[in-house]
Amino acid sequence: MRIGLIAPPWIPVPPVGYGGTEAMIHALATSLAAAGHSVVLAAAADSTCPVERIGGFAPAERAAMGRTSSELPHVIRAYAGLVDVDIIHDHTLAGPLYRHRPPGIPVVSTIHSDMTPELCRVYEAFSRDVSLVAISQHQANSAPDVKIRRVIHHGIDPATVPPGDGAGGYACFLGRMAPCKGIAEAIEVARRAGMQLKIAAKMSQPAEVDYFRSVIAPLLGPEEEFVGELDAAGKFALLGNAVALLNPVQWDEPFGMVMIEALAAGTPVVATPRGSAPEIIEHGVTGFLAAATDELASCLQRASGLDRYDCRSAVETRFSAEAMTRKYMELFEDVL
Amino acid sequence: MRIGLIAPPWIPVPPVGYGGTEAMIHALATSLAAAGHSVVLAAAADSTCPVERIGGFAPAERAAMGRTSSELPHVIRAYAGLVDVDIIHDHTLAGPLYRHRPPGIPVVSTIHSDMTPELCRVYEAFSRDVSLVAISQHQANSAPDVKIRRVIHHGIDPATVPPGDGAGGYACFLGRMAPCKGIAEAIEVARRAGMQLKIAAKMSQPAEVDYFRSVIAPLLGPEEEFVGELDAAGKFALLGNAVALLNPVQWDEPFGMVMIEALAAGTPVVATPRGSAPEIIEHGVTGFLAAATDELASCLQRASGLDRYDCRSAVETRFSAEAMTRKYMELFEDVL
Repeated sequence: MRIGLIAPPWIPVPPVGYGGTEAMIHALATSLAAAGHSVVLAAAADSTCPVERIGGFAPAERAAMGRTSSELPHVIRAYAGLVDVDIIHDHTLAGPLYRHRPPGIPVVSTIHSDMTPELCRVYEAFSRDVSLVAISQHQANSAPDVKIRRVIHHGIDPATVPPGDGAGGYACFLGRMAPCKGIAEAIEVARRAGMQLKIAAKMSQPAEVDYFRSVIAPLLGPEEEFVGELDAAGKFALLGNAVALLNPVQWDEPFGMVMIEALAAGTPVVATPRGSAPEIIEHGVTGFLAAATDELASCLQRASGLDRYDCRSAVETRFSAEAMTRKYMELFEDVL
Repeated sequence: MRIGLIAPPWIPVPPVGYGGTEAMIHALATSLAAAGHSVVLAAAADSTCPVERIGGFAPAERAAMGRTSSELPHVIRAYAGLVDVDIIHDHTLAGPLYRHRPPGIPVVSTIHSDMTPELCRVYEAFSRDVSLVAISQHQANSAPDVKIRRVIHHGIDPATVPPGDGAGGYACFLGRMAPCKGIAEAIEVARRAGMQLKIAAKMSQPAEVDYFRSVIAPLLGPEEEFVGELDAAGKFALLGNAVALLNPVQWDEPFGMVMIEALAAGTPVVATPRGSAPEIIEHGVTGFLAAATDELASCLQRASGLDRYDCRSAVETRFSAEAMTRKYMELFEDVL
């Protein structure tokens, strides 16, 4: 099968630092190619994903993230370059509603955003002639009016993640510098557990910088270390040496990519039971779910007692790129 | 004729402060209605334009300006509400490429942006089944590959602008707090001309605030006054009392709305000969065009010698809302 993949224009595939969607697209593209399919990728010019690529795109411009004026030219070029494929898998917001898509080629769209009422209207419009994939059951359930064809969790290739032994003795946080990600809560939880906390966070938007300066920086004490935004190697080293990933998200994150990255490194996850977390973490086996700060702290203290092998094994069986790719291929065949 | 108008979602129609596109849409809507046409407007909920309106929109959210995630839901709702019109005049970027527009209703789109290579690709896609209007000959000429159906200058209703006598004795600048608008150049020109300068500027985006703090604020001396962003009444008072509008734009602005607002107030315009300026200003009659700072300063000194009646008269004959509306009606009839 010849499959066209369209990534958003603002982050390269794979991402150098932050970029859950682009990491997923990279895993899917390489895994589809490894399974013998013909894959062609429309993505920012500085992408390095080793599959066939459509040329002519601009390099990723993170500052333009979310803007119609950069998304539409990208989508137009992408669809113009995908006239010879059997199916198109579109990860943009503007693409599935683009008027001049090549006729007769079915389109699958994975929903990477929140199901806000405004965006639900967009996805309802998608579903008129596009097959929609939700990335967690929670995301699908949160929008009963949007016709979801399949729920497919994200996956990663465990071979790209070195297993760690947690010998660093610290807990870590990894995400965007935003209140919804629960950084302030992570600091409080780690303190109550008496454990050192290393914080890695993307901080490129003005709002993220403001939040760091006004809220997080004043909270940092001798037991907290802010290490900035990490590349892939730095991220997996941070995760692998950690006793646990602390992920007290304060919103219903559709899919917490960082949780399966931690598990792949053998690192259990201590999280609030929101969004996709209960679908990813097996409580008492690969991590713990708790809502209250005290309870999270007590879970964090118990995390070192979990078997790190079980964590990595959960990724190999349930959250591998291969498992994800198999489900997408089933869907593609179903759609064709 | 029943005409549907779609405004962008981020600024109400008419705008309270900054918003050239929304001011133009307001003038067109009221003028079409005054000419006896049935007009229905899709715009932010806090719009006050006194024509029939489609309900259900969110209030204008300036912070989301340019974002696909707010433009698409707006466009979907707009087109869903415009199934009973003869023609749709769309001022958004996402709308003309929206896949599920009501079939059989022709769409006209006015290009409000720069013709960057990226956006030209978007407008070329528009032109496959949408009639495009450029807002100046310069804008049309800058993109020879984009099929422009008509060039129609913006217009305003002179009755909404009180004529001023320029008795304030100062020059004024009015625009966005951005380098391309030429604020720093305006300060230098006014100083060389020995004239006081009043600066009114929109300053809501982080980049605009940064530019003010780092570049403009340090330049301000006793002869310059920064008055912030003004509402319509404040704007026309500022313009009417000014000897001249100083508009040394550093880019090819497709249409400088502020120039016809100044002329309507009887105020001549001293500008660099870029973008639409040579089409709007009659050199030596309604203002002056000059590129060099010294020359601009000497023009500014001569501005008080121009006849303010000629300025207002240019709007009444060439840049009135009525003249603009007549041209749009000719186009609508031509398209139908």
